[in-house]
Amino acid sequence: MDLEVVTIGTELLLGFLVDTNAAWLGQALSESGIRVTRRTSVPDDRAAIAEAVALGLRRTRFVITSGGLGPTSDDVTREAVAALFGLPLEFQPAIWEELQARFARIGRALADRNRCQAEVPRGAVVLPNPRGTAPGLWVSGEAGEVVMLPGVPRELSGLVTEEVVPRLRARSGGRVVRSRVVRTTGIPESRLAERIAHLEPTLPPLTVAYLPILEGVDLRLTAWDLPPDNADRLLLDAAEKLQEVLGEHVYATGEGDLAAQLLDACRSRRLRLAVAESCTGGLIAARITAIPGSSDVFVGGMVTYADQVKEALGVPARILEAHGAVSEETAAALAAAVRTRYRADLAVGVTGIAGPGGGSTEKPIGLVWFGVADGRGVETRRHVFPGSRHEVRARATQFALWSLWRRALSSGSGPGSQ
Amino acid sequence: MDLEVVTIGTELLLGFLVDTNAAWLGQALSESGIRVTRRTSVPDDRAAIAEAVALGLRRTRFVITSGGLGPTSDDVTREAVAALFGLPLEFQPAIWEELQARFARIGRALADRNRCQAEVPRGAVVLPNPRGTAPGLWVSGEAGEVVMLPGVPRELSGLVTEEVVPRLRARSGGRVVRSRVVRTTGIPESRLAERIAHLEPTLPPLTVAYLPILEGVDLRLTAWDLPPDNADRLLLDAAEKLQEVLGEHVYATGEGDLAAQLLDACRSRRLRLAVAESCTGGLIAARITAIPGSSDVFVGGMVTYADQVKEALGVPARILEAHGAVSEETAAALAAAVRTRYRADLAVGVTGIAGPGGGSTEKPIGLVWFGVADGRGVETRRHVFPGSRHEVRARATQFALWSLWRRALSSGSGPGSQ
Repeated sequence: MDLEVVTIGTELLLGFLVDTNAAWLGQALSESGIRVTRRTSVPDDRAAIAEAVALGLRRTRFVITSGGLGPTSDDVTREAVAALFGLPLEFQPAIWEELQARFARIGRALADRNRCQAEVPRGAVVLPNPRGTAPGLWVSGEAGEVVMLPGVPRELSGLVTEEVVPRLRARSGGRVVRSRVVRTTGIPESRLAERIAHLEPTLPPLTVAYLPILEGVDLRLTAWDLPPDNADRLLLDAAEKLQEVLGEHVYATGEGDLAAQLLDACRSRRLRLAVAESCTGGLIAARITAIPGSSDVFVGGMVTYADQVKEALGVPARILEAHGAVSEETAAALAAAVRTRYRADLAVGVTGIAGPGGGSTEKPIGLVWFGVADGRGVETRRHVFPGSRHEVRARATQFALWSLWRRALSSGSGPGSQ
Repeated sequence: MDLEVVTIGTELLLGFLVDTNAAWLGQALSESGIRVTRRTSVPDDRAAIAEAVALGLRRTRFVITSGGLGPTSDDVTREAVAALFGLPLEFQPAIWEELQARFARIGRALADRNRCQAEVPRGAVVLPNPRGTAPGLWVSGEAGEVVMLPGVPRELSGLVTEEVVPRLRARSGGRVVRSRVVRTTGIPESRLAERIAHLEPTLPPLTVAYLPILEGVDLRLTAWDLPPDNADRLLLDAAEKLQEVLGEHVYATGEGDLAAQLLDACRSRRLRLAVAESCTGGLIAARITAIPGSSDVFVGGMVTYADQVKEALGVPARILEAHGAVSEETAAALAAAVRTRYRADLAVGVTGIAGPGGGSTEKPIGLVWFGVADGRGVETRRHVFPGSRHEVRARATQFALWSLWRRALSSGSGPGSQ
């Protein structure tokens, strides 16, 4: 099944917003065997919206729109599409009452201008949107079908997953485009390509794409237009082959996050975790605590930005004086101190120079020292990361998580160890 | 001057790539007074490319394409556009020799398949691309003009900046599209709209757009097609009017981050800052330390995830037992304790339930308690945030930064206080 997507918003064309909905929609639909054959972005303008939707209907008879369903005067999608189908907008008291009741439950009042979000083109199917105030609207007519969705990403994705895809899947004939990602870290793209070169001829009909991101390189394997079972089996086999060759550089075959893998590795070994961060400034703790259920493994962290706080944690002043705050000795002392202080089993200490200021020939911007402490002692690693302050911090955070993960795996009492 | 953009690539439609070029192009062009009136994404398919370009030419007589100029068989933009204008492709030896010489200089060989990148529609202007192998191509004819650019982001942006914008600027008559954002937090979109309703009629020729993000609502004022000085003055005046009405809900008129504003407010008042975070798990510290130069204000933070760590910081066990970890008393004690322990002037303590588990009728998911401590004592606030774990954490982080910022402003010894 083919369809077109029309994303609506002057901001999209001005480039003040990156159209992440478009990518997300493409993935979610192709995953169900539905192909997006064209995507058009138009401003918040009735005529432009109507023209783009009408052309899309002429080509595929099915259009999904996102955006322009809000309560303000620049939200005109509802009117444009209703007019295109020659349908009047009708106020539906039930929608309005449900909205009011929902707001009342969380102790908030709903503004009167939201009333327009209870207006529906006559005969349209209303798709409930528990995450926001604008329901999705599914209009059918001679010209084809239009599904209008709100532009707020979590509202759009909720409606697509719960309301749109289940209805469309029935029409897609059982073939899918499916992909699986093999997530790597600690190895640059060119070295990765060399390591797996001998495997590439064995991958078709799957394709493989290299996606370098801040946290490493994702390898995306894709199966095109195959029956679901066949696609899944091929993808799983190929992911396992890659993992065998790449070893500890692969931290997930699937959408997994390294912090989640670390928590699992600790949990199965009953290891309690703590962190002491300087240049990463809370990012390691934030990555870990982003995972639901992290509290049964993660004890806590310290962001030891000022030297006085490093000392208060238990880093001896003589170490800071003799070697400086960014040094192997400080990283090791941070890890050991936070492990003891927080009664954790496994801990990391991180100290470095994220930039843009503060670098020197001896200690350049991007230099980061890591200490990993467990019952066996403290291990240290030095790394110089390229890029901006943001990039150095993100890369150092990933490296710290990777170091902790490998240390946990090697501690040997869990099911995943060798 | 109006034009349309056509981005080309099957990967874009499948959603495996986010179309960052589109946003970048929108910004770069509007900054020079050129308006992108529509953007279309099509797969690597001759007919689809030709149709999208032809429709764009009919509407605006000017189209910029990105992508599909590479050396592989799925790169068909060159052929599609040449055919549309009825022009033959001609191999230009000079381009090929220059490419070979460039590769020889960096010790690499150029594959024969790159020869097609030296093919040019007859009469096209060739735009040199020192960052890659595909030059830009500018074709003119009866139907209008098409500029073909490569899809690699840094090649595209280099060509636009160095070759396209300078040629187009001359046509835009010195008029620009410029915008300014007024960043608000702590007030929902609908309430915001009511508060500024009386101002909206005074804003034209500027337009205003509401952009709800996790951290609040951004109001984007835009001046269309005006001389630069005039645009800047109107934008500044309007931003000031909005700020006057919205008061402390406006934390920046411009691209400013709330963490940066907080650091400035503290710096000018010589306040040193510390944080104790439970449910936000390091995000507040990470937002603060993302700002270069934060170390002269920010002392450090604690991520007090486990109760034992809250106690170690100095939250009395009897408070945790009597009121629970998520309580007004614990938030206040966290703030006071980290302020004392870290010898800071201003501190926040945050404790809450981010979900997805752990909620109850009395303490629902999304409930967060905040304590803000300074020399005058501790102030507490309760808030229930909607959304997922990620959203609750991001919103609570913004609320904590906002609370700290207002407390800093009210401490009265800096230039920004009343």
